[in-house]
Amino acid sequence: MRKVAIVGVGMSKFGEEWGRGFRDLIIDAGRRTLEDANLQGKEIDGMFCGTMAPGPLIGQEHAGALLADWMGLNPIASTRVEAACASGGVALRQGYLAVASGEHDCVVVGGVEKMTDVSGPDVISVLGGAGDQEWELFPGATFPSIYAFLAKRHMHEFGTTEEQMAAVAVKNHYNAARNKYAQFQKEITIDTVLNSKVVSSPLKVFDCSPVTYGAAAAILMPLDKAKKVCEQPIEIAASTQASDTLAVHDRKSLTELNATKVASKKAFEQAGVSPKDIDLAEVHDCFTIAEILAIEDIGFFEKGKGAKATEDGLTALDGQIPINTSGGLKGCGHPVGATGIKQAVECVWQLRGQANGRQIKDAKVAMSHNVGGSGATCVTHIFKN
Amino acid sequence: MRKVAIVGVGMSKFGEEWGRGFRDLIIDAGRRTLEDANLQGKEIDGMFCGTMAPGPLIGQEHAGALLADWMGLNPIASTRVEAACASGGVALRQGYLAVASGEHDCVVVGGVEKMTDVSGPDVISVLGGAGDQEWELFPGATFPSIYAFLAKRHMHEFGTTEEQMAAVAVKNHYNAARNKYAQFQKEITIDTVLNSKVVSSPLKVFDCSPVTYGAAAAILMPLDKAKKVCEQPIEIAASTQASDTLAVHDRKSLTELNATKVASKKAFEQAGVSPKDIDLAEVHDCFTIAEILAIEDIGFFEKGKGAKATEDGLTALDGQIPINTSGGLKGCGHPVGATGIKQAVECVWQLRGQANGRQIKDAKVAMSHNVGGSGATCVTHIFKN
Repeated sequence: MRKVAIVGVGMSKFGEEWGRGFRDLIIDAGRRTLEDANLQGKEIDGMFCGTMAPGPLIGQEHAGALLADWMGLNPIASTRVEAACASGGVALRQGYLAVASGEHDCVVVGGVEKMTDVSGPDVISVLGGAGDQEWELFPGATFPSIYAFLAKRHMHEFGTTEEQMAAVAVKNHYNAARNKYAQFQKEITIDTVLNSKVVSSPLKVFDCSPVTYGAAAAILMPLDKAKKVCEQPIEIAASTQASDTLAVHDRKSLTELNATKVASKKAFEQAGVSPKDIDLAEVHDCFTIAEILAIEDIGFFEKGKGAKATEDGLTALDGQIPINTSGGLKGCGHPVGATGIKQAVECVWQLRGQANGRQIKDAKVAMSHNVGGSGATCVTHIFKN
Repeated sequence: MRKVAIVGVGMSKFGEEWGRGFRDLIIDAGRRTLEDANLQGKEIDGMFCGTMAPGPLIGQEHAGALLADWMGLNPIASTRVEAACASGGVALRQGYLAVASGEHDCVVVGGVEKMTDVSGPDVISVLGGAGDQEWELFPGATFPSIYAFLAKRHMHEFGTTEEQMAAVAVKNHYNAARNKYAQFQKEITIDTVLNSKVVSSPLKVFDCSPVTYGAAAAILMPLDKAKKVCEQPIEIAASTQASDTLAVHDRKSLTELNATKVASKKAFEQAGVSPKDIDLAEVHDCFTIAEILAIEDIGFFEKGKGAKATEDGLTALDGQIPINTSGGLKGCGHPVGATGIKQAVECVWQLRGQANGRQIKDAKVAMSHNVGGSGATCVTHIFKN
């Protein structure tokens, strides 16, 4: 397989963008990405689009073809992939495989979600499609309540506190306030989180990622070709994916996501690095407890120690392993299908030294971790400059 | 890139299976496929699932993870792909790339659709998501009416008649009556079609493929390994994909699908064959006019001659180029995401000599052609025994 690199990235401003449609978001991110790569559309020979639920949300399936059409790139092959909240990460991985295989030489991977639009089912019901509808959602669970199970169990087993979970949100809002593309631009305090309305105990509004519109994209080429057309190609040193049961009741443990453990272990092997070699990581903090699970399951901290590590500032911009420098899903916003690509965009900016205001000094190796549902899919990538 | 072969295939009985859910259909097709390949689940290391709209239809997204879970194959990577009615074909192509690249050694590709279930939006609205919602469906078009445009124009330009379109349906029901997995088991006549209720003039009920439940699957391995574990591996000699505008009003011609032309031309180049080398083809006959467009655009007949060729029996089981020996979408049924895989299943059965009652003698090369929407995606495959 050929080595693969990212030669251009871009994203729309994440947020509640009522005046912009699904297609506007795609065009915005796509145009910025082509400009960043200094490429013309005619140089693109393949495309993958990650989006979770445009069918129920805006009445539009077939988003791969839509992207090629609205970017003016017909007749190239363009495919939508979906793995709930990991749709973007899976699109990046499919693009990686398409280039690594030798089938394509220049691929755009994009992620997009317009989470509320014309009258349709409410977004909470639609997001429920990421879990096990028959065994979890139809009987009454919502996604916050599923993650609340995991939080309760983590508190029970390891003494994790609501204050420690709140520290995740405080850190991620702090980082987001230094990212002009982020939905939230204001810092918050532990009290902001603790005093916010309960969604599903112990999770409160500020423990939850928001409803967001947005798109993000990246252009992939073989590494050898990338070096000829790009000053700072960023190598994709690992791309891995794993699955787990859709329903949490079928799992052996409620305090770890096995798909994260499997995918990240493979990623470290593929890239030839270990957790201590990672200079920064974008992890899937759909809820504050999710970030704590992730940093433990990836191996940045021992199981049960992630909450304390966060409280102690070890995951801050100046900490031992900066986590979610972009603001994460919590601060940057979570337009479901776009998130996995946005994580890669942030890693690229950091590795290029372009993360103004939140730059990690001398960053050489970055990691992204994107979860679908309550952990039934996990996709991890490792990037090197 | 490595050569890739199919080592096992299977499908559920297509039809209105009210007593069986989405998961039952998957398990049925998956079990038959593993048995056909004489493999255990533990030998599978990757999975792709093509399904168009489980979100709006049954409230369930994240079908890649669902498949891995219900087939008992966690923690393997499992990804859903979607390209409207070409979702199955795209899943086959992603599986092909995953094996060709060297990333995976044994991949299951599956397609599935449960088209009506619990109360939800009507299936016609959901299928509209395959086209351009903003420019076609919201303003009032339906899929039959879009294909009716194409039929009207074909009649105007080439003198194609309603009787000639009906001949497609008669042939495909004849073939379906010889396929125990097909939804329709009865032959029909030209009069059956002409006297059936008008859906969107000139298309009548018997010009349209039905609403169907079903699933189909195939197992892919590198050709060299396949030869060691399988008596009759079927090589995937070409796998190609192309796109076109979502809305038909943006196209230069209403009497051809450019994505079919681009994808099939590439497929012939990749496989090193020409249309006259193909012994049988499964083409995308979502409406009778669609089969006529396909056999012209692929190059089996000159543009404008496909309808007459069908009327003259040139596409029958004993004709010059047998088309849709399975019964096609029209006779076999069209569970959207499953169709592209079912086409491959039929090609494999034909090339193995297992298509009892409809076997094409000495079949060596077969082709499948799967269209998304009104031609915004086309995926073609060529198979050799």
